[in-house]
Amino acid sequence: MAQGTIGNSEFDRDTAVTPLGPGLHEAELSPGWTILGAVNGGYLLALVGRALAGVLPHPDPVTVTAHYLTASRPGPARIRSEVVRAGRTLSTGQASLTQLDEDGREVERLRVLAGYGDLDALPDDVRTTAKPPPLPPYEECPGSRNAGGGGAGGGVAALLGSTEIAGRLDVRLDPATAGWALGTPSGNGEMRGWFALADGREADPLALLLAVDALPPTAFEIGLSGWVPTVELTAHVRCRPAPGPLRVAVTTRNLAGGLLEEDAEIWDSRDRLVAQSRQLARARLG
Amino acid sequence: MAQGTIGNSEFDRDTAVTPLGPGLHEAELSPGWTILGAVNGGYLLALVGRALAGVLPHPDPVTVTAHYLTASRPGPARIRSEVVRAGRTLSTGQASLTQLDEDGREVERLRVLAGYGDLDALPDDVRTTAKPPPLPPYEECPGSRNAGGGGAGGGVAALLGSTEIAGRLDVRLDPATAGWALGTPSGNGEMRGWFALADGREADPLALLLAVDALPPTAFEIGLSGWVPTVELTAHVRCRPAPGPLRVAVTTRNLAGGLLEEDAEIWDSRDRLVAQSRQLARARLG
Repeated sequence: MAQGTIGNSEFDRDTAVTPLGPGLHEAELSPGWTILGAVNGGYLLALVGRALAGVLPHPDPVTVTAHYLTASRPGPARIRSEVVRAGRTLSTGQASLTQLDEDGREVERLRVLAGYGDLDALPDDVRTTAKPPPLPPYEECPGSRNAGGGGAGGGVAALLGSTEIAGRLDVRLDPATAGWALGTPSGNGEMRGWFALADGREADPLALLLAVDALPPTAFEIGLSGWVPTVELTAHVRCRPAPGPLRVAVTTRNLAGGLLEEDAEIWDSRDRLVAQSRQLARARLG
Repeated sequence: MAQGTIGNSEFDRDTAVTPLGPGLHEAELSPGWTILGAVNGGYLLALVGRALAGVLPHPDPVTVTAHYLTASRPGPARIRSEVVRAGRTLSTGQASLTQLDEDGREVERLRVLAGYGDLDALPDDVRTTAKPPPLPPYEECPGSRNAGGGGAGGGVAALLGSTEIAGRLDVRLDPATAGWALGTPSGNGEMRGWFALADGREADPLALLLAVDALPPTAFEIGLSGWVPTVELTAHVRCRPAPGPLRVAVTTRNLAGGLLEEDAEIWDSRDRLVAQSRQLARARLG
């Protein structure tokens, strides 16, 4: 696999959008970012995020909310974007991704509302009490590209490796949150791991929109199985990430009414909290 | 003050919306919900939430995101709402609140994207690890309607009481997070307190949209002063609240790039986590 760089990588090619007219882009949803046929929500967010960057006066996503309306399929898609407000330091945009159904009718897949800014222009004061998650070293965490990490290693490698998206990502789980892969979930709503792109492309703000939804669902560690479709996801990008694999920690504290929240935080190699996200997802109790 | 009830209270009158046509409502933003002239963001969210409930097939807000575009003023406003998707258990809507500026031009104040459902129809399984925040009893926490609570009591009562919204709310702060009122902020990004409506109206899902933005900013306890305007706020309503004052805990973990997040959780008298929210706000470092 050729080394990926920002602008020349699998992620950049598969999230490319082509302008068709004012506020209108077309794209091809790649089958490489699916999990058992379902297109990954973070991949969709990054792709729409790229279209919005093409119409807004600011380059970087700062706060992005997506409502997932219907299940996207690999294949052609269109993105309609609108500038809601162009401000001095932040601008606000809205976008809608659609696909044609079997009868040729246009169906909306997701609706996005987002604030963009220039991360490099923000003041660099930081007052944070947040701490990076505890995580064993990258080399010791099992994933589709690393069967190490002790007992859970082979199981995690096999399970993550069975998804199409495993060819694009290098996700490595903390063995402490990988019990589900051996049939012994911890019962806690926690999932932690390392995130990198398989071709070595470094993360940028658009890749953070992918990373917030890239780990297996926390529901697996709670002991639930099956798909946990996202209803709504909001991601805040707080900082341009430094090079190197990212640490991702996802927590679910409340499963109620058939819905659960997944709170994700992403830390870069310089120990900075570069993104936070929360999604509301549907859970099926076993 | 007459005892308020759901449907007949200050909150209901001041968030009333009048249909003008398909997807179009008018409203009057009340000066009673302002803080030094600025209309409270939670009040705006509740008012738009009521308009959306009028156009969507489901009654209750489940996930609501608002982008605050320009500063709202007391006076007339219009809300345009759109059904994005009507599903079986959840529907998605979008709304825009506008006002006329001095020159009679329509200016958008906030844009909202929301998912609605029927909270009473959700399955009632709960698996939660979240715990209610530690908080002294309602009677012992100082607020605009209660000068008790020891040392900080008088200061909190005076400061909260100096805002217009103090006539509508009965917010009482945990003395442990009220040091800012005495000029001795803790330095921690935490604010906790009790929330009730001043006229005794019980909380419902729309009032939760108000409650997530009703405490003083966590920035005060970090040691910053001045306005902390919301850029974006997302609230999840997880459960219809039981009667009685609500406990609200707000936490800021990361202040960086001139922005900070405020994570709020709201607990009802039955110890259920009834709402979660996160907002991204601008902070001015002193």
